[in-house]
Amino acid sequence: MLEKFRFLTAGESHGKCLTAIIEGLPAGLGIDVEFINSELKRRQQGYGRGGRMKIESDTVEITSGVRFGKTLGSPLTLIIYNKDFENWQKIMSVKAEDETDEKSFSTYRPGHADYAGSVKYNQKDLRNILERSSARKTAIEVAVGAVAKLLLKHYGIEWHSEILQIGKGKNEEEFHSEIDSAKSVGDTLGGKFEVVYENLPIGLGSHVHWDRCLDGKVAQAVMSIPAIKSVSFGNGEFGYEIPGSKFHDEMFLKDGKIVRKTNNAGGVEGGMTNGEPLVVRAVMKPIPTLKTPLNTVDSSNMTETTAHFERSDTCAVEACAVVAEARIACVLANEIMLMYPSDFLTDKV
Amino acid sequence: MLEKFRFLTAGESHGKCLTAIIEGLPAGLGIDVEFINSELKRRQQGYGRGGRMKIESDTVEITSGVRFGKTLGSPLTLIIYNKDFENWQKIMSVKAEDETDEKSFSTYRPGHADYAGSVKYNQKDLRNILERSSARKTAIEVAVGAVAKLLLKHYGIEWHSEILQIGKGKNEEEFHSEIDSAKSVGDTLGGKFEVVYENLPIGLGSHVHWDRCLDGKVAQAVMSIPAIKSVSFGNGEFGYEIPGSKFHDEMFLKDGKIVRKTNNAGGVEGGMTNGEPLVVRAVMKPIPTLKTPLNTVDSSNMTETTAHFERSDTCAVEACAVVAEARIACVLANEIMLMYPSDFLTDKV
Amino acid sequence: MLEKFRFLTAGESHGKCLTAIIEGLPAGLGIDVEFINSELKRRQQGYGRGGRMKIESDTVEITSGVRFGKTLGSPLTLIIYNKDFENWQKIMSVKAEDETDEKSFSTYRPGHADYAGSVKYNQKDLRNILERSSARKTAIEVAVGAVAKLLLKHYGIEWHSEILQIGKGKNEEEFHSEIDSAKSVGDTLGGKFEVVYENLPIGLGSHVHWDRCLDGKVAQAVMSIPAIKSVSFGNGEFGYEIPGSKFHDEMFLKDGKIVRKTNNAGGVEGGMTNGEPLVVRAVMKPIPTLKTPLNTVDSSNMTETTAHFERSDTCAVEACAVVAEARIACVLANEIMLMYPSDFLTDKV
Amino acid sequence: MLEKFRFLTAGESHGKCLTAIIEGLPAGLGIDVEFINSELKRRQQGYGRGGRMKIESDTVEITSGVRFGKTLGSPLTLIIYNKDFENWQKIMSVKAEDETDEKSFSTYRPGHADYAGSVKYNQKDLRNILERSSARKTAIEVAVGAVAKLLLKHYGIEWHSEILQIGKGKNEEEFHSEIDSAKSVGDTLGGKFEVVYENLPIGLGSHVHWDRCLDGKVAQAVMSIPAIKSVSFGNGEFGYEIPGSKFHDEMFLKDGKIVRKTNNAGGVEGGMTNGEPLVVRAVMKPIPTLKTPLNTVDSSNMTETTAHFERSDTCAVEACAVVAEARIACVLANEIMLMYPSDFLTDKV
Repeated sequence: MLEKFRFLTAGESHGKCLTAIIEGLPAGLGIDVEFINSELKRRQQGYGRGGRMKIESDTVEITSGVRFGKTLGSPLTLIIYNKDFENWQKIMSVKAEDETDEKSFSTYRPGHADYAGSVKYNQKDLRNILERSSARKTAIEVAVGAVAKLLLKHYGIEWHSEILQIGKGKNEEEFHSEIDSAKSVGDTLGGKFEVVYENLPIGLGSHVHWDRCLDGKVAQAVMSIPAIKSVSFGNGEFGYEIPGSKFHDEMFLKDGKIVRKTNNAGGVEGGMTNGEPLVVRAVMKPIPTLKTPLNTVDSSNMTETTAHFERSDTCAVEACAVVAEARIACVLANEIMLMYPSDFLTDKV
Repeated sequence: MLEKFRFLTAGESHGKCLTAIIEGLPAGLGIDVEFINSELKRRQQGYGRGGRMKIESDTVEITSGVRFGKTLGSPLTLIIYNKDFENWQKIMSVKAEDETDEKSFSTYRPGHADYAGSVKYNQKDLRNILERSSARKTAIEVAVGAVAKLLLKHYGIEWHSEILQIGKGKNEEEFHSEIDSAKSVGDTLGGKFEVVYENLPIGLGSHVHWDRCLDGKVAQAVMSIPAIKSVSFGNGEFGYEIPGSKFHDEMFLKDGKIVRKTNNAGGVEGGMTNGEPLVVRAVMKPIPTLKTPLNTVDSSNMTETTAHFERSDTCAVEACAVVAEARIACVLANEIMLMYPSDFLTDKV
Repeated sequence: MLEKFRFLTAGESHGKCLTAIIEGLPAGLGIDVEFINSELKRRQQGYGRGGRMKIESDTVEITSGVRFGKTLGSPLTLIIYNKDFENWQKIMSVKAEDETDEKSFSTYRPGHADYAGSVKYNQKDLRNILERSSARKTAIEVAVGAVAKLLLKHYGIEWHSEILQIGKGKNEEEFHSEIDSAKSVGDTLGGKFEVVYENLPIGLGSHVHWDRCLDGKVAQAVMSIPAIKSVSFGNGEFGYEIPGSKFHDEMFLKDGKIVRKTNNAGGVEGGMTNGEPLVVRAVMKPIPTLKTPLNTVDSSNMTETTAHFERSDTCAVEACAVVAEARIACVLANEIMLMYPSDFLTDKV
Repeated sequence: MLEKFRFLTAGESHGKCLTAIIEGLPAGLGIDVEFINSELKRRQQGYGRGGRMKIESDTVEITSGVRFGKTLGSPLTLIIYNKDFENWQKIMSVKAEDETDEKSFSTYRPGHADYAGSVKYNQKDLRNILERSSARKTAIEVAVGAVAKLLLKHYGIEWHSEILQIGKGKNEEEFHSEIDSAKSVGDTLGGKFEVVYENLPIGLGSHVHWDRCLDGKVAQAVMSIPAIKSVSFGNGEFGYEIPGSKFHDEMFLKDGKIVRKTNNAGGVEGGMTNGEPLVVRAVMKPIPTLKTPLNTVDSSNMTETTAHFERSDTCAVEACAVVAEARIACVLANEIMLMYPSDFLTDKV
């Protein structure tokens, strides 16, 4: 849990709704619901997504913490209703009397939380794990991140992200062709992407204690996205082969101001923002639900079998980058509030 | 701060001592001081280190929390005295009347905390930043991690680490030759390494909330090591090019038990340990203090200059791997204590 | 925030709903919605409440974390809808375009958060403070506490509470007559009450660090109830006049077990439960909204005036005791989960 | 653990030293070691203390985080050495080979942590509990609080405390006579005291979430002092008998500023400071170690016996008030840092 920008999220993939409560925002921050919804829309798009994503359109409802378009300083509640809940009402019922084994399953899906989760929580029906471990829950995190971004916007901070590689593809045309090829054989693909935040104040984070380092906090936020398996700053992934004389970002003066010609450090030195753009790279693993199923085990009778197929995305790297952007926004909003007084916002900084 | 295995560390690079307090350990854990010292020794070794490291030998003193070789359940204090403090006593004095500008400096060293730290903490003498941002502070973290490892040992957990690449070198002979070459031209090198923890219980961490995911916590712990710029799990760094059909670790049965033939996930699925070895890879950037100095700026008169040279290591990847091992041990000890009852340890599990 | 039983609550007094998310519960805990609703009902009753309370009846909706009557280990969302929201929809609208000054006010109510809150959060319309500082928000806390109680029940823990004094009254008949008298002159009354938890395991909390002491955690949970101004354990409030020879609870043996004849310590020694009933006493101040208004200041024009009257309760001590019970349940549930393994519950302990 | 002013303390009563690490202070705060030592001295004084206290004089050593009299922004280490350690070196040895049962004991002392602590931590030698549960550990907390007070001083905040009642005594002469009487019969006494902090900014703490209320945080900090059993704000202890028309602190205007004629709320409304003095009252129970021993049980053979006598204070209320002052200072320093930017201090505010 972050110190100032505190939030909890909740919700099952096919439950009634996803919910988040955010605690710690200053009063007076303008909350633009359309912006939040546009972020939700960005998460649902991208080449390689299945049919469901293209049709559905998540929207957020705010039920606390905002009045007449501005935050009150009190906790915000964000809700995203599941538009398909009608069809799942019985299967996901809260009530004991509705118990059913419809849609239950017992075959572990490699790459998912099914196995470890069912051991940890002592569950026979793997749906009881799937429902919370699904990527569906990242929708509400994108909404939370959108609120964080509104705070960052207030401070003039900007951001963008970019897909760097999918399979062997390194540009948009190649991405599409890689995805098409994978799709044609029932396979899936991951990808590498980059998120950049600019105009950050110098000194977010700190070198004085390990758990205050900005890079550590960002790494946690991004690595805990279900599909992310690698996180780097700047050219850090190549830090083993670039010698010191080339890696470190030399400092020069231009018009009396400190400037750099490179940003291999990705904007973080000593666990703090250094005035250069914050550049975070991450690798998403391929989606683990494949049309060509993987070998696995059925836990109900402990026999070898092949994995259950549920979803039809081939590649979701664009969505994943949106989630990473959101997660990083939360960390930065927290640090901004630790650096600046944050009980209320004035019109300008 | 972790929930159960809580600790704070303190100490300047040339101060009297480094100190840590660990709070939350069970009573009855055997504390082997020789083991802690051997870990401190491991941190000081490795091909490519300068003269100072080879001579000095850190040792820990425990001043609380342990009696007759076993923990009491109360906080442990660990202290590592600086053997060279006599020469720094005046320069690092706590007393106002000792103020001096001996050893002060004003030239930012690229790749260090100097610039961002001095802006954040409003310091003119960059030594006031250097002293805490130095890698020296990782010594006490290794001691803390050694205590965590003693808890892990009690549960039968094992670990090792390995250097994977330095420059273009991929084995020990090549590492030495890469380091020798860099040293001969006054340059420095980073490296890639892997830390492995085995025999972990299934289900450490959780998929239910982002800040409970084990991979996120490990990523924070490793990425906040000053020189680390990239962290991955298993083959996660290549997750963008390995298709789903090859990436995910299929499950089979052998003698009635679930087994896998691959471990691309690095032992983490859904933010939890899955019974396979936990494999964490990280990239250390090259040491930023070079004999061939980098271009930079002198903050005292805002002129361009070249960076100050203080230390003489060429490569410290082995030490960095020891620090990463220690940091990961702390995260795992915390998770173990969240999973098992942890007020006191019985002799066997 | 507690370490294991984590929760955030949200909601304005006249907003659409109150919401809570609870994170950290074990899987397999039976969730009896009727029990939660009966707790909500208890909070709405008691001699001295105004008309609104008697008519309304809060009920909870659970939208995540529970399936077929049992927890999943994932976060629970609890929602209590405001049955009167229709009449407040415009006044409490999230949308900027609905801005209105209907129901706004500027006269500070002594004893409320109005003054400090409006300074802290820079608000002109004191409704923006009133809406979150209202006792209304304790409804969702009672629901959260009811979930905690279900966990405590599983471990055989029991509880009850009792009103000790209202005005000069010391029994139920006297309470009623005190309340009737106060009501007849437009005044209000506080009271003193006691909450008792029994069958707790020995050793909840700890003496080893100040922020792990059970009494401190309970004191925080109870003192932060808006109207509570005093908290004691056992006969602690009289600890200044009872000498040591009489205060401390001597230990004897009965059938080979340790027994005590007194419980002045209220079940806590050294910051830990000691096997005796946990006895927490608290004093609620009188309700600050009086029919006979208090002198105060109008912030809009900085003139002296008298306070705004909104609510009609004369005494709410019974409700306050229910809230205290709930808060203490949360602290105890957290400590239980720190003491016992808590990923899933077995049928029996 | 507080959010910004984080600290851990460590140390056994007869161990080598007590240690604290404070993390989160701004850089540039003047650290006056003499002030810290004078606070330690205040804790050791007071009518009713035994011989040991009068002779010994604790002093602090700072080994990190301060240079040339000012904080660096890095963690502070505070150490208080035990001047009597020479005599306890073997008995409190860290080494397994020194194990001895000298000074071990098995008779539970009622009112102490002995019983609950030995059950929780599975200890046979009750010294393993006594050593950490002793009031000795409050010495280092007073040192930590003194550092917090230096931050408060910088913001113009002032404080004082006062003994209100000891036994039946209500002024200093009566206190002495009550203590003399108790001492003459081998008994002990507690007391009631008041700590006041003045010139606090309005709005420390918050009404928006229960764990942000200032009164709750203060209550935890004070109630977790080993001997404290009751905590109140202002006249809150009498809130059950003072009607609303008299309890709430009316507001008036004087020279255009808001003033009050009473402070029954003790300076906190809605969980926030309201500009009036913060008034915290607490009751300390009598010291549980009596010359006239209490009935109890010997755990080694489970027989009834009388308690072990170790210390000779009759009353320690003055010391306890100093500890409470220190604890409250920590909470206030934390809140100040959450309200104001706190990376570095300027010379004046």
